[in-house]
Parts: sequence; structure tokens; C-alpha cells
Amino acid sequence: MTPSFADIQAAAVRIAPYAVRTPLVESPVLNALTGGRVFLKLEILQRTGSFKFRGACNRLAMIPQSARDKGVVAFSSGNHAQGVAAAAQLFGMPAVIVMPSDAPRPKIEGTRAFGATIVEYDRVRDDREAIAARLCAERGAVLVRPYDDAGIIAGQGTAGLEMAEDAARFGVVLDEVLTPCSGGGLVSGVALGLKGAGVSAQVHSVEPENFDGMKRSLEAGARVQAPGGKLSIADALMAPIPGVIVFELAKGLLAPGFAVSDAELERAVAFAADKLKLLVEPGGTAALAALLTGKLEAKGKIIALVLSGGNADFSAIADIIARATLR
Amino acid sequence: MTPSFADIQAAAVRIAPYAVRTPLVESPVLNALTGGRVFLKLEILQRTGSFKFRGACNRLAMIPQSARDKGVVAFSSGNHAQGVAAAAQLFGMPAVIVMPSDAPRPKIEGTRAFGATIVEYDRVRDDREAIAARLCAERGAVLVRPYDDAGIIAGQGTAGLEMAEDAARFGVVLDEVLTPCSGGGLVSGVALGLKGAGVSAQVHSVEPENFDGMKRSLEAGARVQAPGGKLSIADALMAPIPGVIVFELAKGLLAPGFAVSDAELERAVAFAADKLKLLVEPGGTAALAALLTGKLEAKGKIIALVLSGGNADFSAIADIIARATLR
Repeated sequence: MTPSFADIQAAAVRIAPYAVRTPLVESPVLNALTGGRVFLKLEILQRTGSFKFRGACNRLAMIPQSARDKGVVAFSSGNHAQGVAAAAQLFGMPAVIVMPSDAPRPKIEGTRAFGATIVEYDRVRDDREAIAARLCAERGAVLVRPYDDAGIIAGQGTAGLEMAEDAARFGVVLDEVLTPCSGGGLVSGVALGLKGAGVSAQVHSVEPENFDGMKRSLEAGARVQAPGGKLSIADALMAPIPGVIVFELAKGLLAPGFAVSDAELERAVAFAADKLKLLVEPGGTAALAALLTGKLEAKGKIIALVLSGGNADFSAIADIIARATLR
Repeated sequence: MTPSFADIQAAAVRIAPYAVRTPLVESPVLNALTGGRVFLKLEILQRTGSFKFRGACNRLAMIPQSARDKGVVAFSSGNHAQGVAAAAQLFGMPAVIVMPSDAPRPKIEGTRAFGATIVEYDRVRDDREAIAARLCAERGAVLVRPYDDAGIIAGQGTAGLEMAEDAARFGVVLDEVLTPCSGGGLVSGVALGLKGAGVSAQVHSVEPENFDGMKRSLEAGARVQAPGGKLSIADALMAPIPGVIVFELAKGLLAPGFAVSDAELERAVAFAADKLKLLVEPGGTAALAALLTGKLEAKGKIIALVLSGGNADFSAIADIIARATLR
């Protein structure tokens, strides 16, 4: 069942004691560059370093008190992992997280630091959903899906609700909103949150090339798998197809999606560090990359984009910047 | 003459069309580390990359239309330079900026990019005030001082007014506020803005060791020169003595000041990048350094600190982080 705007409002109340009320901030640098007015939603400043804490916190808060002792299980390349682990720690619940063994070290270490047990798997050889299902059965634990769950989508949607509130406070009417997209929990939640709050902006998903399942699905009018293949530099955005619940919601809410290349993501990482003074992980810059490459016509428009996560090593970002500068 | 709270309110109206309404954002990482609640005022996101645009924009907006053609002159190691140059460009005024030849390249280039004429001087050999006075006399231009001017202080004070507004919006009562300090325009303006808005927090200056003129002056009850000497890594914070107007205001408003070493500043730069995902120049981290080193007892307190500027090269920050990590 798809979530409603009331579910987002309820999520906002549930997560308020724990989540950061992240800012929406105008960027004179991007205004000058694009000829529009550009606002940034800084989810890199969210607890655990990405928006994923919103959904995880809301979903865990919905687990009845009687079921909390048995804990939760999740599978994730890193940001959902940290969101679930941190929420579980706050609620005093055990958490087991199934993570690919090639996930960025800071994501694995960050997850462990929140007290979760990590089970590593091989991204190519193993079936993470099967591993997670077995762990849930063994423990009687609740599986916390990364996106295809109404409670998760409603949690991510609180970011859209906040963007609507802040835009109103600044006296601006948003024309276009861009968010990074993997399985689609964030973009669909944000679109629902904005619409429910009365903002009629066009909301666009931005995905890595070859992992642009949402873009393709929106074009086809039905869920379509992207080709996948070679891993993207955006380790957080590699779901090849949107979730079922996600797409049911997204198909009525989203404007056409965009896809960006690894080189475009790298240039966006460098731009964020050099010009915006923000350390954003590759996947977290997808919306910025779509703007910088002119995929969205920005001139004269009021635009908001989500910088969705910052969980990359400083040294990894330094390497990306070195490559982007040479190119 | 010292500025009043009404001057800050007037400045807020003057700069609103141009300045970024920068966010105040809570940091779960710093909460966990300190046992307090810590909010960050992100002046690294201000137009020109530091709070200095506030004062410059307000001061230039106060110049009568009839005097604008002859333009402005300023001396600065970089952040005030960019603030004045950007404000002059917005108001269509010529600007000449007297800058030390060893100022960080991005600050010199940034200033030039805003259309200003740069006059370089030798920090040791030349008298920058004399050079600026001569330029003003030749051109009939207005000298825009970096801190010892009621219009500048009132402009910087808008940051304090915004912090008071945001704290009220979040329903928190600030106990302690920390800001980096050089000549004292920011810390005294912020203290006045907070007090005028009804916030009774203790406001502390944080300076580099040996450039802690404000700390020493507050202790002595009169303006005292710090020893200076070896240049600090905080190129933006090397005024050895607070301004006359600044200190007249500050002595009745500020709690005791703090001083931090270069090593403490470097660790704060690394912490900001690694844990907060923010690129802050060394001087911009002074308040954070005072918190991280426990100079301010934070446990159980609600604290706001200003991250005052981010105008350092990414490579310079990478070098600092490499050093801080080795130490």
C-alpha cells in the first residue's frame, strides 16, 4: 500500500526528537552559474550523514513495543545500513545489517559504530535478500527494506515536507525539484511531501547511467529494469529498478527523470567541494550533476535539489577531485 | 559611535536581497561528543564564502547614491576583500582592495573575480592603512574598514539576529555562543544581535594564540595588544588588537575569550571535513577548536558556534588534514 501525505505528517512527528531539521539554503554560486535561483537541501548534515535516517527512524518507531526485543535486519550498501543501525541504537533494539564486502569502509565502520552486527556478502555471488530473509526467520526480527515500504517512503518524505515549509518561509515558489534516486524511496517521498504541502513543483529523479530504472520506468509507464553492468561510482545508487510500492506512487507524481555519467558525478563532487564547501559522496551529488550539465533548463527557474549523503572518506573525495580536475 | 540593536535590524533589511539567510543546524556528532546540544551557524555558505559579506553589504548600502561613483577602498587579507568586492559589484561601484601578497590565492582570485582592482603589499614592510588612505585621497573613495566601523559591526550582527530567530524556531534557549575573532566585528555584532533579540547566552571570542587581543583586552578591561609574531595558520584572524569601536561595544557584552593553537585549529579543520562534511578554512574553525579541546565546558549546555568562513583551497585543506592525521 502506498503512503499518504498524512503518513508523512505522522512520520515528521515520530522522527522530530531524533532527526536533524536539515536546512534548505540558497547558493549564490549556483544562481550566478545557472541564471536561476537554486536552493540546496543539505541531507549530508542529517544524522548518520544521509537522508536514510529519516525512513529508518520512522519505520522502526512503527514497530510495536512487544516486537522490539527481537530487533531488525536490513540489507544495504551503507547509508540505509547506518540509518537503521542508528535508529535501532536510539530505540534500544538489536540490528543485523547485511552489507556488500566492497562497500566503502566508512559506511561499514559507521554502521558498526552504531552497535549493529554486520554480515558481509559478495555483491556478485550472493543473494542479499535471501541472507536477510534467513536472518529474520532465525531471529524473529523485522526486515527493514531500503525503499519499498510505506513507512520508509513516508520517512524520506519528511524531507519534502521540510523543503515546502522552508520555501514558504523564504517566500519562494519552487518550480523544479531534483533528487538522487536509487530504488526511489527518496524521490517519491519528497514528491508526495511537496504535493501534500501544496507545492506544485516538477519533481525529477536523477540516477547513474545504466542504473536509471526510474527514468526508464517513467518513460515506459511500467517498472523496467535498467541494464546495470559495470558498477557506478555512485555506490549508493545502484538499484536497477524502482520498488513496486515506490513506482505505484511515483508514476502519478514524478516528472521525467535524468541520468548522469560517472564523469559528470565526479565533476559534481569536485564542484561541491571547491565552490560549495560541502563534502558530498558521489551518489549524493546526482541532482547537482544534472543541474551542472544543463540536463534541467534552470534559467529563470526556482530550483531545489537534494544533496542526499556525504558518507565518503575524505581521501576518496580527494582522489575523485584529482581525477575530475585532470579530465 | 557604537551600533545599536536597531542598526542591526536596519542592516538585516538592507542586506536581505543580497545575503544568504544561512542556516543554524544541530550536529548529532558534536552532541554525542560533548554531552551538550551543539548548533552550527554555517557562514561558509554565505555569499563570498564568509560572514564578511554581511558587514560589507550593509556598509556599502549606507553610502549615499551621490558618493557611489567614486567607489570604495578596503584593505584585507581576503575575506573582507571578497565581501567588499562582491557588494561593490552588486551596487555597481568601483572597488580597490589592498591585499597582502602572501594572501591565499583563492582569496586574491576570488576578489578579482568580483571585478575589484587589487593592489598588493608586503605584510612585513608596507603600511596597508597608509596605502589605503592614499588611494582614498586620490580617488575620493570611501574607506571600508574591516571591523572598526558601526556599519560593519551592525552587518555582522545580523548573523546573531538570525541565530536568535532560528533558536526560537527550534524551541531552544542558547547557553553559550562561540565565534572566531580577529578585530572583533563578528563577535561583538553577534553578541549585540543576540542580546537585542532577547537571548541571554554567554558570548565568547576565540582567537589564535599570540593574536588573542580580544581575550587579553577583556581580561585587562582595556584594549591590549597581543604579541603577534610568527604568522598563524588562521590567516583571517591575525589582528593583534580589537578595534576601538568594537571594544567599546564588546567590553559590556562578552564573556571571557579563548585562544587556540595552530595544531588545535588543524585538528578542527580535519574534524569539520571528516565528521561534519564541511570545508572550513583554518580561521573559520576557531570556535569549533575551542569546543573540541574542551576549553568551553559543554556538557548539558546548549551551544551555538559560528563556522565563519570556507575560503581555502581544497588542496590546502587536504594538506592540513594530512598533517593533523599524522600528529
